[in-house]
Amino acid sequence: MRTHPGLKATLAIAAFCAQCAAQTYQRLGGCPTLGCILPPDQVDFLPGQYFDIRVEVHAPLNGSEVIPGYTTPDTNFTLTIEKEGQAAKPAAAFFNIPEPTLETWNFTWYEDLFAKAAHTPSQVKVAAKAYRRVALYEPGQYIATLKYRDSSTTYANWTVRDITPARKAKNVVMFIGDGMTTNMITAGRLLAHQSVNGKYQTKLAMDSFPVLGHQMTHSLDSFITDSANSATALYSGHKSTVNALGVYADSSKTPFDDPKIETIAEIFHRLYNGGIGIVSTAFIADATPAALTAHTRDRGQYGAVIDSFLNGITNYTWTNWTGPDVLFGGGAEQFYPGKGSFQGKDYYAEFAKKDYAVVLNNTALQAASNSSKALGIFSVSNMATWLDRNVYKKNLNKPKTAPDGSNSSATDQPGLKEMTLKALEILHTRHPKDGFFLMSEAASIDKQMHTLDYDRALGELLELDDTIKATLQYLEAIGELNDTLVLITADHGHGFDVMGSVDTRFLNAQDTAREKRGAIGTYQESGLSQYVVANRSAPLGSDQNLVYSQGVHFPANWDPRYTLFSGLTANPDHRENYQVHKNGPRLPALNVTGFSSTDYYVNYVDAVTGFVINGTLPVSADQGVHSLTDVPVFSQGPCQESFGGVFGNVDIFFGMAACLGLSRTSPPS
Amino acid sequence: MRTHPGLKATLAIAAFCAQCAAQTYQRLGGCPTLGCILPPDQVDFLPGQYFDIRVEVHAPLNGSEVIPGYTTPDTNFTLTIEKEGQAAKPAAAFFNIPEPTLETWNFTWYEDLFAKAAHTPSQVKVAAKAYRRVALYEPGQYIATLKYRDSSTTYANWTVRDITPARKAKNVVMFIGDGMTTNMITAGRLLAHQSVNGKYQTKLAMDSFPVLGHQMTHSLDSFITDSANSATALYSGHKSTVNALGVYADSSKTPFDDPKIETIAEIFHRLYNGGIGIVSTAFIADATPAALTAHTRDRGQYGAVIDSFLNGITNYTWTNWTGPDVLFGGGAEQFYPGKGSFQGKDYYAEFAKKDYAVVLNNTALQAASNSSKALGIFSVSNMATWLDRNVYKKNLNKPKTAPDGSNSSATDQPGLKEMTLKALEILHTRHPKDGFFLMSEAASIDKQMHTLDYDRALGELLELDDTIKATLQYLEAIGELNDTLVLITADHGHGFDVMGSVDTRFLNAQDTAREKRGAIGTYQESGLSQYVVANRSAPLGSDQNLVYSQGVHFPANWDPRYTLFSGLTANPDHRENYQVHKNGPRLPALNVTGFSSTDYYVNYVDAVTGFVINGTLPVSADQGVHSLTDVPVFSQGPCQESFGGVFGNVDIFFGMAACLGLSRTSPPS
Repeated sequence: MRTHPGLKATLAIAAFCAQCAAQTYQRLGGCPTLGCILPPDQVDFLPGQYFDIRVEVHAPLNGSEVIPGYTTPDTNFTLTIEKEGQAAKPAAAFFNIPEPTLETWNFTWYEDLFAKAAHTPSQVKVAAKAYRRVALYEPGQYIATLKYRDSSTTYANWTVRDITPARKAKNVVMFIGDGMTTNMITAGRLLAHQSVNGKYQTKLAMDSFPVLGHQMTHSLDSFITDSANSATALYSGHKSTVNALGVYADSSKTPFDDPKIETIAEIFHRLYNGGIGIVSTAFIADATPAALTAHTRDRGQYGAVIDSFLNGITNYTWTNWTGPDVLFGGGAEQFYPGKGSFQGKDYYAEFAKKDYAVVLNNTALQAASNSSKALGIFSVSNMATWLDRNVYKKNLNKPKTAPDGSNSSATDQPGLKEMTLKALEILHTRHPKDGFFLMSEAASIDKQMHTLDYDRALGELLELDDTIKATLQYLEAIGELNDTLVLITADHGHGFDVMGSVDTRFLNAQDTAREKRGAIGTYQESGLSQYVVANRSAPLGSDQNLVYSQGVHFPANWDPRYTLFSGLTANPDHRENYQVHKNGPRLPALNVTGFSSTDYYVNYVDAVTGFVINGTLPVSADQGVHSLTDVPVFSQGPCQESFGGVFGNVDIFFGMAACLGLSRTSPPS
Repeated sequence: MRTHPGLKATLAIAAFCAQCAAQTYQRLGGCPTLGCILPPDQVDFLPGQYFDIRVEVHAPLNGSEVIPGYTTPDTNFTLTIEKEGQAAKPAAAFFNIPEPTLETWNFTWYEDLFAKAAHTPSQVKVAAKAYRRVALYEPGQYIATLKYRDSSTTYANWTVRDITPARKAKNVVMFIGDGMTTNMITAGRLLAHQSVNGKYQTKLAMDSFPVLGHQMTHSLDSFITDSANSATALYSGHKSTVNALGVYADSSKTPFDDPKIETIAEIFHRLYNGGIGIVSTAFIADATPAALTAHTRDRGQYGAVIDSFLNGITNYTWTNWTGPDVLFGGGAEQFYPGKGSFQGKDYYAEFAKKDYAVVLNNTALQAASNSSKALGIFSVSNMATWLDRNVYKKNLNKPKTAPDGSNSSATDQPGLKEMTLKALEILHTRHPKDGFFLMSEAASIDKQMHTLDYDRALGELLELDDTIKATLQYLEAIGELNDTLVLITADHGHGFDVMGSVDTRFLNAQDTAREKRGAIGTYQESGLSQYVVANRSAPLGSDQNLVYSQGVHFPANWDPRYTLFSGLTANPDHRENYQVHKNGPRLPALNVTGFSSTDYYVNYVDAVTGFVINGTLPVSADQGVHSLTDVPVFSQGPCQESFGGVFGNVDIFFGMAACLGLSRTSPPS
């Protein structure tokens, strides 16, 4: 890529200025100098994709970046845009829009942990503008240039990828195993699939996918991402900042004015009126589903997220949006009227007003018409896990989980498979010609890994695999398989792995922590998985000998004598006995001091037969955290060849968008 | 696959007999019943590949498996072989060899940890035979049937894969990053490659490989493998038992009579007189290089391994072997005469007698002729790490490391790149027509991960990547690139990941463990890698601003203020301060009690500014262990399409063997 002549030198200072503290804390992600252009340097666009531009000029009032005498940001900054080889134009003229209004504000940040400990924030004054809903159509290189404070300049090299508008797939089904790594897939296979002399007799559905890739998950401004940021990359082709949904994070106070990027759902709807399905086992305002329509730097704006599903973005000129065909998940607290819902409104009623069938349990889901739009909300908060729905069912009896906001329990919840298959039926019925885009998320792989509940996390992974298998069968049955790109990927990892087995009977019988550790078998002593053995207490020759059911690939026994020696690479203080948590999802750490909300110790009622492991995370952490690792991408169908080898998370967006024909290389006439 | 009619029921009992304790301890891997056939059920063969068969009949004298009145194993057992659809024949007749001699022995084992704690071993009497150096040529299904004790039967279904003898590649270069996972690759890329706004400006050489796969690493009889066992699978297509090299482990006393499997090096030499190169940064008798020619269930027979490199297998009829063209690595203690060398002989002299040029440092290596066979041994034990050779060079001054067995230091050691490039020169010179097979191992990724020395491990990974890059350039320069299958893979994982960054200045300034944990930054606070910044103490505007050298992809600074928050999923007791170990490879745990050799605590001189993390491994462990995870396979060149998606480690052998044309579907005439 050709770059602006002055760029390389600028970058060398900008990107590697250690004293500018682009580390634990940052003044503003994507803006290492005092002039900020968002989208920043080095980003790519789909031809014709809508986006906003934010420019900011910063004047630090104190701290290491202060410039003597410069206490007010230059308000006479200019932004120009040039296509490579052509003349630069003022941005408003380039996009043929009115010059935006000047905005000003202040913000504070900490330069490092010492500054935070000393309560000495750095203060910054800001002058800014926002250029709303613009697009670049012609593929090629562009340079955005911000000039401020006499001779200071910030450049952003932008690439509009050379993607033709030709459509190659009718449908895309995108499965996201939230937090799912190769390590977890390996463990899930071991739990559920029979092996003889090291050879698996059956395998995961994802093992049969012909093309494998690895995607790099880093953020714009940190190498560990969260699910909001990574979903933004996967759906829009733009990496952003932790907590940001469909925007670059600016430094202003409101979380609703940050510069937006159009998502695959929005583009597909705008260009083709294609069907859109959104399915998750999380509360449906959670980041991974939210990033398809929400545009805010604060993923915690749950009420507004739900409103965006239905009404799109209403506070600025933006792409037309009329709601997805299917929206299935948990999170009733943002729907029944009350403090959790947007403006206190009843969002069941709001969706119903716009002709959505509203279903609140699996029975109603199955009975719903395939020709209407459908909203299915099946629990308060996250939906119950596969393990609780299928094995430890009494855990479903939990008051105030029913989606109607009553004191009842949500005992009739569908699984990811039931939701996904119903979504496919509706999408196929409503969009027989236009095609559809379905995102189906196994959210609690991540949620249960966070709380070190490895069994529940792997149960969710196996449910995802079962859902994939059923999806391929259904697509084949309706004749759509060859026209559908099916992708399975994740948004980030957790540092999980399995290192051997544990003789839980021996562990439970020992008195001291050091003796209990002797129950762990590594290498040769890891032995074979006993999760495929139906019943450890049954006599030999009865159902102890697994009659393996072809087609149902879940463990036969979640509580064998020999369990997996699993772990994470970073934890809060906790205890491990390596045994399934039968009474519901695990809570590994507690704030037991009573003095502070940020001082977590081992939960004294968790895994009581085990031994204590001191944490490595900050003591304010009550659970595990995300990790760095590249995550796998399995693909099959049209354009599968785009997803082999190693690439960035943003390339998933560009690959799917290219396959669906979402590029527009000239403006609409 | 069709199976013997009686097989399924037998397997259901055999493979899932929990009381048979096929777990922490096993009577014999691959033999869940009292009759054993090795190679066991479900294994695959290359057409024409040599192998031995071992049959054993067990009579347990005590323990849960004892059969009242059966205290002597049945010596009248019979073994028959049938090709599917044809009549079964006695094994000796089937292979047209003499009936083997009957052998008998006894052995003991523990049924579980309680039995071990109580010192109550189970005793077994054995009757056995071995059928040596046989082969199956016709592709298809075979059934081996062992009958013993009246009506007891053990079946082994064997598959000879349908692989044609046609050769598609002239050369194969196989890189093994020992213990290398996707997580480590991600971390290595972060350390060494510059990223701007989440977009890498350069990438790893392996990132450019067009085809990606995942291989499953499980053993025959345990789900966690070691490097011996997995190297056996990679080179021979047969999974085995921990510690076994090129054999299935039987229960006899001697480690030199176990049933062998011919390796890719042996077959390629036998059929084509192809060139063979063996390069490793480990002591060269270590498992990964050893498994190319050694056949013993005990990888610790280092002297015999060295003899096998030179002379092949001499104690039984076996394939002809005349030594590799190139053997480069560490491990001088098995070469200079003494207790480490085979029969006390001088193996430098033994190799020299067979026309090897012997070189003992990098200078001599570079000067060596390309037309002779070459032995290069550059240090006692494992070779020095990249970090010590290139950054903390004073650590090379370590007495008694010189390869001549003197008190000197091995200060002139080549790296993996220098050894690999020289190996390629020699192989290309000596085998311009036959082609070559080169295995090049970055051994200390594993070795340094074992001792929690993440910096050194990642340095080795980056050196591997640099070696791959140089190899592709060299192959291109000599016109062999298009005729060479290049594979990069690993043999197993370690549960490593990176979860954020650490402000080491803040950590070092805190007094308590809980306060020190506050130095860790996750998610947004992970920030950006500072390893690409040249010098943290230099003033702004000088070499603090990295001038990134294209083509050399190692960190500019191994000791930045903000380091990686890394960890493993299982550890001994240890301490972490997340800072590079400048004084040489790390030793995390010590036996400080003085009373027992199996009770390890944190090393009181390691990472002293950090906080203690109690271990989870048995207290006899002084280091970390291997993990379960599938490992990546990067491939390019002829047959690259064989290595996409998810497959077993044995499939690497079959893919390479097919590509080199090593199948023979009829016996030599």
